[in-house]
Amino acid sequence: LSLVFSVTPRAAVESSLETTWKKKTFFIAFWRSFISSMASHSTEGAPSADMYPQKILEYMEGFLISKTVFTSCELGVFDVLLKAERPLSAEEISQAVGASLDGTQRLLAACAGLQLLTVHHDKGQVSYSNTEEASVFLTRSSPLSLCQSIQYSSRTIYLCWHYLTDAVRSLPNVSFVEGKNQYDKAFGVSSKDLFQALYRSDEEMVKFMHLMNSIWNICGKDVITAFDLSPFKVICDLGGCSGALAKQCTSVYPECTVTIFDLPKVVCMSQEHFVSAADLRIGFREGDFFKDSLPVADLYILARILHDWTDERCIELLQRIYEACKPGGAVLLVEALLNEDGSGPLTVQLYSLNMLVQTEGRERTDAQYAALLTTAGFTNIQHRLTGKIYDAVLGYKET
Amino acid sequence: LSLVFSVTPRAAVESSLETTWKKKTFFIAFWRSFISSMASHSTEGAPSADMYPQKILEYMEGFLISKTVFTSCELGVFDVLLKAERPLSAEEISQAVGASLDGTQRLLAACAGLQLLTVHHDKGQVSYSNTEEASVFLTRSSPLSLCQSIQYSSRTIYLCWHYLTDAVRSLPNVSFVEGKNQYDKAFGVSSKDLFQALYRSDEEMVKFMHLMNSIWNICGKDVITAFDLSPFKVICDLGGCSGALAKQCTSVYPECTVTIFDLPKVVCMSQEHFVSAADLRIGFREGDFFKDSLPVADLYILARILHDWTDERCIELLQRIYEACKPGGAVLLVEALLNEDGSGPLTVQLYSLNMLVQTEGRERTDAQYAALLTTAGFTNIQHRLTGKIYDAVLGYKET
Repeated sequence: LSLVFSVTPRAAVESSLETTWKKKTFFIAFWRSFISSMASHSTEGAPSADMYPQKILEYMEGFLISKTVFTSCELGVFDVLLKAERPLSAEEISQAVGASLDGTQRLLAACAGLQLLTVHHDKGQVSYSNTEEASVFLTRSSPLSLCQSIQYSSRTIYLCWHYLTDAVRSLPNVSFVEGKNQYDKAFGVSSKDLFQALYRSDEEMVKFMHLMNSIWNICGKDVITAFDLSPFKVICDLGGCSGALAKQCTSVYPECTVTIFDLPKVVCMSQEHFVSAADLRIGFREGDFFKDSLPVADLYILARILHDWTDERCIELLQRIYEACKPGGAVLLVEALLNEDGSGPLTVQLYSLNMLVQTEGRERTDAQYAALLTTAGFTNIQHRLTGKIYDAVLGYKET
Repeated sequence: LSLVFSVTPRAAVESSLETTWKKKTFFIAFWRSFISSMASHSTEGAPSADMYPQKILEYMEGFLISKTVFTSCELGVFDVLLKAERPLSAEEISQAVGASLDGTQRLLAACAGLQLLTVHHDKGQVSYSNTEEASVFLTRSSPLSLCQSIQYSSRTIYLCWHYLTDAVRSLPNVSFVEGKNQYDKAFGVSSKDLFQALYRSDEEMVKFMHLMNSIWNICGKDVITAFDLSPFKVICDLGGCSGALAKQCTSVYPECTVTIFDLPKVVCMSQEHFVSAADLRIGFREGDFFKDSLPVADLYILARILHDWTDERCIELLQRIYEACKPGGAVLLVEALLNEDGSGPLTVQLYSLNMLVQTEGRERTDAQYAALLTTAGFTNIQHRLTGKIYDAVLGYKET
C-alpha cells in the first residue's frame, strides 16, 4: 500500500497552485473582502455562522456512516437483537457477537444516532432493540435482507473507491483492458476481463450473485410491472444470474416462461444455490451473449447489463438480440436512469462513477439508451421511472 | 491485502446463524406475517412502498459521497474553477486538472448532484462553476480551506476505517500497545506510540498539523469565546500544535500571551510553517506533557487532547496541570461532547468510533469530563455547547 502516500505527477495543477501560492497576499485580500461582503448580506451580520460548512462536513463523514452500518451488519448486531425478541444491554450484545464491550458500546451508540437502533433507559440500565427498518433490511434471515449487498460494498467496492482519483485521472486512451479498472490496485487481481475479475473465485461469485439477488428483492417488482409485459409469453433474461428477476416475472405474469441465459459457471451456481429444479417455468441456457447464439424469445430482459459496457459493445449486443427476437417482440432494459439535464439523481451519478471504477461502462439517460436501441433497429421506445433506484426502458422489433 | 477476504473466526455469531438457517421455514413464515401486518397498518396498503429502505441505501452510499468530494479536491477541480472566474466546460476542467474527459464528466455530474457545483446550459453547451460553499471551503487558497483535512481523511482515516470491524472485535484486554489501533493493518506502521505513528514522517506531521489548523479556522473562535477568558493573562496551550487556537486567543483577548507546549519536533515545525517569530504574544516550550515540568499559567488549554487518552492517563495529565496551575487559575477542555442520554450528536458518536480506530481514547459526555476534572482537584466545573463540532468545559483551581 505504499502507493497511498506516493506523489502522483499532476504537473498542471501543481504548477498553477504554486503560482496561486505566490499570489497569496492578493488571495487573502480577496477572501477577506469576499467573506465580509457575504457577512454584510446576512441578516444576522455574523460571518462565522454563515460560513459553517455543515453540508461538506456531512459529506466528509459519509464513509464513517457507511462503515458503521457495514460493521454492525458484519458482526451480526441486528441478528442477535432480532433473535433475542427483547432489548439487550451492550454487555449481552458484545458477548453474543464476540466483540469488545467498549467497541460495541460505541458502535451501538452510533447505530442509535443513525436511527437503526432504539435506546431504552430503565432504572439506570441502557438497552437496545432494532428499529423496524433494521429488522427488515439488516438481518441475514430476512427475505428483504441487504446484508450480502452490504458485505460486497464493504469488502470490495469500498477498497476500489480508494482509488477513485486514479480512475478519474486515467487517460481516455488507456482502455479497460490495460488496467483502467481499479481491481488491480485494490486486490492485485488482473482485470483483463471484467467478469473474470468479478468471478475470480466461487466464493466471490456467490457473493456477487447474492448481491444481485438482494437488489431485486427490493426493486424487482417495480421494474417488472413498470410496463405491462403480459403479452410476452417466452422471455429470455440475458445475464439473468441468480434468477431473482425471472422469479418476479413468473410471479407477476402467470402465462410466461423465462430462460436464464448466463455464463456456464453462473448457471451452475444459480441451479445449485438459487433456483429450484422443481420450478418448471424457469429454465437455463449456458453461453456468452457476445459470442453464442441466443434463444428465440418474445421478450429479452437486460437488467443492469448495458451499464457494464461501452456504447460499441452495447450496440453489438442489442443487434444480436434484434436478430434473435421474434417480430413484434421487444427488449426490456432495466437500468438506473440519469436525468437528461445532468441534475441527478445523485445516486445514479455516484453509480456512474462506480462503473468507471469497476467496469468499462457507465450509467446513461433514457435518450442515450433510446439512441443505442434505435441504432440496433428497435422502435417505439418508451421509458418508465419507478421512483426507486432502477427504471425500465422498452423497445420493440416491428412485426 | 489478503486479509480482506480471509474468514475471521466468530464462532458465536456463526453458530447462532446456522441455527437460524435451520429454522428458515419458521422465519420465512414470521417475515411474511410481519410484512403483511405492516402492510395492513399502512394507509396505502402497499407493502413494497412502505418497505423501501431509503435511509439505509443512503448510508450505504456515504462512502461514495465522501470519496467524490475527496477526489474532486485532490484533483483541484474547485481551484481551477475559482481561478477561471467564469464557468468552464468539462473539457476545459479535465485538461486543467490532467484527468480523462469521461472521468471528469462523471465527477462533475456527481458534484452538481451534491450541490457543490452549479450547472450552466447555454446553446447546448454545458459548463460548471463553484457554489459559494465550494469556493470558500474546498479551494486550497481559501483561508477557510478544508482541503488538508480532506486529504487526511481520504488517505489516512478512510483506510483505517476499512478495519473498523477488527477494531470493534478486539478483546478489551488487548491494549493499544499490543496493536488495537488499526494503523498497523492500514499502513504497516508499528503503533506502539500513537504520536510516533501520526508523526512517522515530516510529511505526515505537517499534514496532521494542517488538519488541526483547518478545524480551528472553522470552530476555533466559538470555543475560545464560549467562556469569557479575559481574566486569564498567562495562557498555556498544551499540545498546541500549529498555534491556530493560540492565534484565536491573542486575537480575541488583547491582554493575554500564549505559550504553545508541544513535542520538540512539533514546535520546530510550528515555528517553521505556522507561527511567525514576529508574533511576540505567542511563545513556545518543548516537552512531553506527561513527563516534563509544565509552565506556570493562569489558564491551560487542552484542545482535543483528552479524547486521545484513557481515563487513567487523562487524570494523570490533569493532576500535573492542577499542580502547575496558579491558584484561581483554570483549565479549558475543548472537545466534542456526547449527549448524556446517548442520543447523539451523531458526529460525536462517529468520532468516538474513530478514536477507537486511531487512538486509545474516546469522546465523552460533559459529566464524564467533569468527573475527570473533579478527580484531579478542579472545582466549579461548567460546560458550554457551541452548536458546532467542538464544545468547551472549564474547571477552576480554588484560590
